[in-house]
Amino acid sequence: MASDKKLVEAITSMEDDFAQWYTDVVKKAELIEYSSVKGCMILRPAGYSIWEMIQKNLDARFKETGVENVYMPMFIPESLLNKEKDHVEGFAPEVAWVTHGGSEALSERMCIRPTSETLFCDLYSNIVQSYRDLPKVYNQWCSVCRWEKTTRPFLRTTEFLWQEGHTAHATAQEAEERTIQMLNLYADFCENELAIPMIKGKKTDKEKFAGAEATYTIEALMHDGKALQSGTSHNFGDGFAKAFDIQYTDKDNTLKYVHQTSWGMTTRLIGAVIMVHGDNSGLVLPPRIAPTQVMIIPIMQKKEGVLEKAAELKEMLSGVCRVKVDDSDKTPGFKFAESEMRGIPLRVEIGPKDIEANQAVIVRRDTREKYVVCIDELQGKVEELLVTVQKDMLERATVHRDAHTTTATTYEEFKDAVATKPGFIKAMWCGDEACEKKIKEDTTATSRCMPFVQENLSDTCVCCGKPAKTMVYWGKAY
Amino acid sequence: MASDKKLVEAITSMEDDFAQWYTDVVKKAELIEYSSVKGCMILRPAGYSIWEMIQKNLDARFKETGVENVYMPMFIPESLLNKEKDHVEGFAPEVAWVTHGGSEALSERMCIRPTSETLFCDLYSNIVQSYRDLPKVYNQWCSVCRWEKTTRPFLRTTEFLWQEGHTAHATAQEAEERTIQMLNLYADFCENELAIPMIKGKKTDKEKFAGAEATYTIEALMHDGKALQSGTSHNFGDGFAKAFDIQYTDKDNTLKYVHQTSWGMTTRLIGAVIMVHGDNSGLVLPPRIAPTQVMIIPIMQKKEGVLEKAAELKEMLSGVCRVKVDDSDKTPGFKFAESEMRGIPLRVEIGPKDIEANQAVIVRRDTREKYVVCIDELQGKVEELLVTVQKDMLERATVHRDAHTTTATTYEEFKDAVATKPGFIKAMWCGDEACEKKIKEDTTATSRCMPFVQENLSDTCVCCGKPAKTMVYWGKAY
Repeated sequence: MASDKKLVEAITSMEDDFAQWYTDVVKKAELIEYSSVKGCMILRPAGYSIWEMIQKNLDARFKETGVENVYMPMFIPESLLNKEKDHVEGFAPEVAWVTHGGSEALSERMCIRPTSETLFCDLYSNIVQSYRDLPKVYNQWCSVCRWEKTTRPFLRTTEFLWQEGHTAHATAQEAEERTIQMLNLYADFCENELAIPMIKGKKTDKEKFAGAEATYTIEALMHDGKALQSGTSHNFGDGFAKAFDIQYTDKDNTLKYVHQTSWGMTTRLIGAVIMVHGDNSGLVLPPRIAPTQVMIIPIMQKKEGVLEKAAELKEMLSGVCRVKVDDSDKTPGFKFAESEMRGIPLRVEIGPKDIEANQAVIVRRDTREKYVVCIDELQGKVEELLVTVQKDMLERATVHRDAHTTTATTYEEFKDAVATKPGFIKAMWCGDEACEKKIKEDTTATSRCMPFVQENLSDTCVCCGKPAKTMVYWGKAY
Repeated sequence: MASDKKLVEAITSMEDDFAQWYTDVVKKAELIEYSSVKGCMILRPAGYSIWEMIQKNLDARFKETGVENVYMPMFIPESLLNKEKDHVEGFAPEVAWVTHGGSEALSERMCIRPTSETLFCDLYSNIVQSYRDLPKVYNQWCSVCRWEKTTRPFLRTTEFLWQEGHTAHATAQEAEERTIQMLNLYADFCENELAIPMIKGKKTDKEKFAGAEATYTIEALMHDGKALQSGTSHNFGDGFAKAFDIQYTDKDNTLKYVHQTSWGMTTRLIGAVIMVHGDNSGLVLPPRIAPTQVMIIPIMQKKEGVLEKAAELKEMLSGVCRVKVDDSDKTPGFKFAESEMRGIPLRVEIGPKDIEANQAVIVRRDTREKYVVCIDELQGKVEELLVTVQKDMLERATVHRDAHTTTATTYEEFKDAVATKPGFIKAMWCGDEACEKKIKEDTTATSRCMPFVQENLSDTCVCCGKPAKTMVYWGKAY
C-alpha cells in the first residue's frame, strides 16, 4: 500500500497551490514530459491521445461546413512576413529565425510560422482568379512557434499544436458569416465535447489579433477563477487582400479584393479541461473526449476466472465505449489511484465475490458514486452513466462559472471584486482604450470580451463615469 | 470544347519526358502548389486528402500492433544532436539552424529535426527505469526538414510530412522482431492499399541509416524503370542507448541497455502512387486510398430531373463508397477530363436517356472500360468494380515490375542492362564496398537492397569476379 499512497500524496492540493497542483497533474497523469528544449514540452501518449480525440471530433465538424485541409510550409521568408504592417509588428518580436541551411548562411532569413496568414495569402494570390474559385475554406493541423519568456504546459509553450483555418470570400458579408459560424462551432464543441461553458463575444480593439478588423473569442473560467481564452475567430476584411494583392474577377467582370478570415484552437484546450474539471485526485476527463472511458480493474486477479471475466466484460462493453482492462501486476488500490489520476470517467471492479453474485461495481470518477450492477445490465448502465457524467460535468462547470461571476457598477466595487472574488466581473465600459489600460494597471484584470449577450448594468463606464457603450467581461487571465 | 482540350493538352506525355509529365500531373491534378519558400511545397486539398487517407489507414495498422502516438519538439539543441557520432555526421550537413528567438541570439543554436532519434533517446533516458517500463513503442506524425539542393514535389523537398516510430526494448531479439514487423506492415500496406508491389530486403552497410546497426527497406519500381525507396525500418542495437545512457533495471536486478528501432514512411508515397499508376490523362488512384472513389457526372444537367437523379444515385452509393456529384456549370467533357486528371477510380454518367432507360454508365479510370448498368444493380456493380480495379492495378504494377527486372551475371551484361533496360537488375555481389562504389561510378546504379528472397544467380561477384556472398537488387533510383 506504500506505493498507492505515494502516487496520491505526490499531488499538491489545489486549494494550497493551484499552479503547483496543475503542474503535478500534468506530470503525474503522464500527459507531458519536460524536454531538453527550453519552453517546449513532450506530449506523451496520455496527453497526445486527448489531442487526437479533440482533433478527430473538430475535424469532422469542420468538414461538415465545407472545410478542406491543406499543408503549408513551416517557414516564412522575412520579406513575406513583412508584407502586412500590423501583423509583422505583432509577431516579429516573438518568432524563431532560421539563418543557416546546413553549413551555408541563407540569403534571406526565414522565421518559423507563428501563424500562417502570410503563407495562405501568398497562396490565394496565386490560385484565386475568378469568382468561381471562391470561397476558399482551407485549414491546416500543424505546430507553430512563438518565442515565450515564461512557459507553462499546454497554456503557453514555445511550440504548440493547433489548427488554423484561413478562408477567402467574395463578399464582406460572407466573411463575417464564416467568422461567426466558426466561433459558434468552437463554442458548441467546447460545451458538448469538453463540458466547458463559454462566453462568446468580441475582443476590444486593444486585444484583437494583429492585422484583424475584428476578433471574436470564446472565454472560459478555470477552477481558480482565472479566465482562459479558448478559441478565436478573426475577420480580416480586405486588409490582407490589399497587402498581398488577392483579387478576383467578379461576375460583372470587374476586379475585386477578397475578404478573409482565420480561426484557431490549440492544445491549450487540454489545459482548460484540466483546470475546469480536475480535482485533488488528478484529472477528470469528460467521457466524450476521454481516450479511455472505462477501466476494468480485476480484484484478486490471480483467482481462477477473474481475468477471464474481466476480458468478457471488456468484450461486452467494447460495443458501447472505449474500454480497457488493467491486468498489470500492481495492487487494485494502485490501479484505482492511477485510473483516477488519469481521469478515466468510469471504473468497473470485478472480483470473485462479484462473479459469484453475477454483478460488477461501477465507480464514477467525477462524483465517486458507486453502483453495484447486475452483469446483464452492465452495458446499459455504463452507456447511461457516460451520458450522465458528461451532462453533470457541464452543469457543475456552469454553476461554478456563474457563482464566480460578479457585477460591478462602481470602480470601488470593481477593484474589490478583483481583489477578493476570483472570477469574471461584468461591468460597463465607455469604449475608451484609456479606461481599459487604467483598469489593467490598477488591477491586472483585462477585458476578456464584449459578450454577444449584453445587459445594461448601468449607464456609466465603471472606470471613468462617462456614458457607457457596452458591457464587458473582465478578469485575470492565463 | 476548347477548355476541355486545354486541360488535356497541357500534359506532357510520359513517353516524351517522364520528369515533365510528373511535374504536369502534380500541378494539374492540383495536388501541390509551389510556394515562396525555396524547396518547400504546398499540399493542396487534392494532395493532402490522399495523405489523410494514408495516415488514417497506417495509423490504425500501427495501433493494432501496440503503437502509441506522441509529439516531440521540432527543435534539437546542437549538443543533443552531437551525442551519437555516426548520426550527427549523417545529418548535420543538411539541417536548418535556428540561431535567434525574437531579437535575441540563442545561447545554443538548435536545428529543426531532420529525424528525432536524439529526442526520443533523451525522453527514454528519463522515463525508462525498469523492465516494467518496456517496451516503449512510440510514433509521431509530423514534418521534418532536410536542406536539399535539388527538390522535387513529394520525392525530395526541404520540409516533408512523415511518421517516425521509435521503440525501446529489453532485448536485442525483441528489437529485431519489431524492425521486421514494421517492414512487413509497410510492405503489406503498400501492396494492399497503394497497389504497389514491394521488394523487401536489407540495405548494404554503405546505404544504411546514419547510426543504425541494420536498415531494412521496401523498394518499388516506377513506370520509367527507376527505383523508389518507399519505407525503411532500422535496428539500432544498443548504440544509441550507450550514447544516451538509456538503461533499465532488469528482473535480475542488474542494469542493462535497451535495444532500439526506428521506422518511417513519408509523403513520398504519393509520388510513388503517381509514378506507378499514372498515365497520359493524369493521376490514377487505387480505390482504397482515393479520397473520392466515384464521381457522378450529370449529362444535360439543366433538363428536369437530371440533378435530382444524380443526387439520388449519390445517396444510394454513399453507403458503399466515397462519392461526389460534379454539378458545377462546366461541360460534361471538361468534367470527364478533370475527373480523369484527378485519378478518381470510377465515374458514373447519368443523363435524360439513361434515366428513361433506368440505367447509368460507369467508366473505369484505369482501363476506360464502360459498363451500362441497370440502376437497380448500380450499387453492387460499383462495389464490385472498386475491388476489381484495386486488384487489377496491383497486378499490372507487378507485371510491369517483373518485366523490368533483368538478371546480370557478367559486368558487361550489367552495364548493358543499366544502359538499355530501365528497371531493377539482379546480380551477385561479393560484399565489398569497393565494388558497390565502382558500380555506382561506372553506371550511376546503386544497390537498392539485399532481398530477403535470395536466388543464386552465379557464384561470383558481378563486378570483381571474386566469390559472391549475396544477391542484390540494383537500379537507378529517385
